[in-house]
Amino acid sequence: MKKITIAVDAMGGDHGPPVIIPAALQVLAKQQALTLVLVGNQEILQQQLTIHNKKKLVDDSRLIIHHASQKVEMDESPAHALRTKKDSSMRVSINLVKSGQADACVSAGNTGALMATARFVLKTLPGIDRPAIISTLPTMNHQKHMRMLDLGANVDSSAENLFQFAVMGSVLVSALDDVKKPKIFLLNIGVEDIKGNDQVKEAAALLSNSSLNYIGYIEGDEIYKGDADIVVCDGFVGNVALKTTEGVAIFIGKLLKRAFYKNIFTRLSGLIALPALKSLAKSIDPDQYNGATFIGLRGIVIKSHGGAKVNAFRYAIEEAMNQVEKNIPQRISSEVENLLKTAPPEKPLE
Amino acid sequence: MKKITIAVDAMGGDHGPPVIIPAALQVLAKQQALTLVLVGNQEILQQQLTIHNKKKLVDDSRLIIHHASQKVEMDESPAHALRTKKDSSMRVSINLVKSGQADACVSAGNTGALMATARFVLKTLPGIDRPAIISTLPTMNHQKHMRMLDLGANVDSSAENLFQFAVMGSVLVSALDDVKKPKIFLLNIGVEDIKGNDQVKEAAALLSNSSLNYIGYIEGDEIYKGDADIVVCDGFVGNVALKTTEGVAIFIGKLLKRAFYKNIFTRLSGLIALPALKSLAKSIDPDQYNGATFIGLRGIVIKSHGGAKVNAFRYAIEEAMNQVEKNIPQRISSEVENLLKTAPPEKPLE
Repeated sequence: MKKITIAVDAMGGDHGPPVIIPAALQVLAKQQALTLVLVGNQEILQQQLTIHNKKKLVDDSRLIIHHASQKVEMDESPAHALRTKKDSSMRVSINLVKSGQADACVSAGNTGALMATARFVLKTLPGIDRPAIISTLPTMNHQKHMRMLDLGANVDSSAENLFQFAVMGSVLVSALDDVKKPKIFLLNIGVEDIKGNDQVKEAAALLSNSSLNYIGYIEGDEIYKGDADIVVCDGFVGNVALKTTEGVAIFIGKLLKRAFYKNIFTRLSGLIALPALKSLAKSIDPDQYNGATFIGLRGIVIKSHGGAKVNAFRYAIEEAMNQVEKNIPQRISSEVENLLKTAPPEKPLE
Repeated sequence: MKKITIAVDAMGGDHGPPVIIPAALQVLAKQQALTLVLVGNQEILQQQLTIHNKKKLVDDSRLIIHHASQKVEMDESPAHALRTKKDSSMRVSINLVKSGQADACVSAGNTGALMATARFVLKTLPGIDRPAIISTLPTMNHQKHMRMLDLGANVDSSAENLFQFAVMGSVLVSALDDVKKPKIFLLNIGVEDIKGNDQVKEAAALLSNSSLNYIGYIEGDEIYKGDADIVVCDGFVGNVALKTTEGVAIFIGKLLKRAFYKNIFTRLSGLIALPALKSLAKSIDPDQYNGATFIGLRGIVIKSHGGAKVNAFRYAIEEAMNQVEKNIPQRISSEVENLLKTAPPEKPLE
């Protein structure tokens, strides 16, 4: 098995080392070919390791502490972090990817700062103008998930950007989910040709003329149906769709609770319904969908949810491993090169 | 009580007259000051009336059939409808508003065609560059709903457009919900000042400098929390958010069903939980939220959901009545005039 080294921003996220250290230890115990570089305040990390690795379940050779003197705050502006936090756990983690000392990095820190820093340090792949955030989401089709991008790396996307997102998403899904020709949809406000803004309409034309498996437009109420492997949209729209999804799920959860708490009878029925409700919650365990990818960079950067607990952060590290094994950035590069070769001359990619 | 006349596009929607006629009769039976002009194919409408008004519960003087020889198809392009369907039930209904023969009109027909026709026939109010679609949505805060616009009338909105949407929403909420200073939020992909695209940032500046009760940015996961009276966004984003909400609700409904159908035990527990689940469904009865308003026009146009059944279509007619009683277009006009007077000279509204 290929040896993999992943840099972990051990200071990032709402919970920091008390969540990240146990998650790291759990993954290391399971994944024998993995080495983790924990980046952050040496003293704090050592202390947490002493607490969580008492029984020395993980040997020290695969667990390296890399000191970093600074930390990016969750509400810090990306520009400020970029300018003044050159020795932050986040920045140093990304530097390790740049220098080749790590194959990927994982952070639960400030999304904007992570994107700005990753883009500044790693740069985008040739033929890719802008990185995007891609994430896995559940669908109504039992065993099938889908991926959506951009989820917020960009606030305005041109048709070319949307086209590049589709290329990157297609490569990612092909590689990770072993789907030969992933079905690509463009998020729009109607499915007829005339619907949508200019960027979306032009992106549809670019996609139709490409060798990608572009199916057509998709509306917001269809994204969870399971027809799509990849839903492409600009970052503003994608971010709103994703967060609205979270909001609606919380809303319905509250309504359910309220309905079951109404009176003694409904409380009893709620008690009896508990196993069904638990199986519902389990069937879309949000932890397993933790770990968004910053795609389009010359290196693998995985962003964990800021509020991730141990289980969720473990998934994010495993997502990074997966992408290292599948050589995602290299595959995107060669796919872009292929598409450039076959692209119609009047619509060049760059 | 003020006498109100409403034109109803009786041929529109997925179900047409068999749903619209009984809905019209039910509202008329309840609302003694109301006259409805049913616009559409005379023969079909007469036939449906004979079926549904057998007992003559509603006297004929408040129920007028206005013949129109054409019908706009649900999948027809707005441009085509505008050009070739000058005697459609939709167009004639709007004409009746224009000529003052009706105080408002209601249609469950093709949204794009309805908007294009309404805009062409009625024109926008002075100081309003573009109409928007505004709708009422439930929130987690028990008795409180909120309104959101634009839900899809526009695919690109400038900062000035967003500002105007906020003005219109504020007037509507003040008038209909009797809220003095409705709390306005701008939908964005973060709540920090630096987040978002240029349009949203500039709209925030315009709103902050106005006399409107602008609170700040709101993210997708917060829109159903109940803090906002009005959420303002561009039509592409709003449409995606609304439809994603529908999609997630359907998704969770399916998961619930699946969880309860798993085995004999969960089926029994589902049976016992039925009253609680029914009360949940009732607490956000989608029918009562039927009836989106095309706001910003020189006349009241209410769009019913295409798939509306009798109950839902009734709500849409009642929404139109409400807005006639509250003089919504006139109020928007005078509010815009007021704001123009007080607007800082470097940022004029027009």
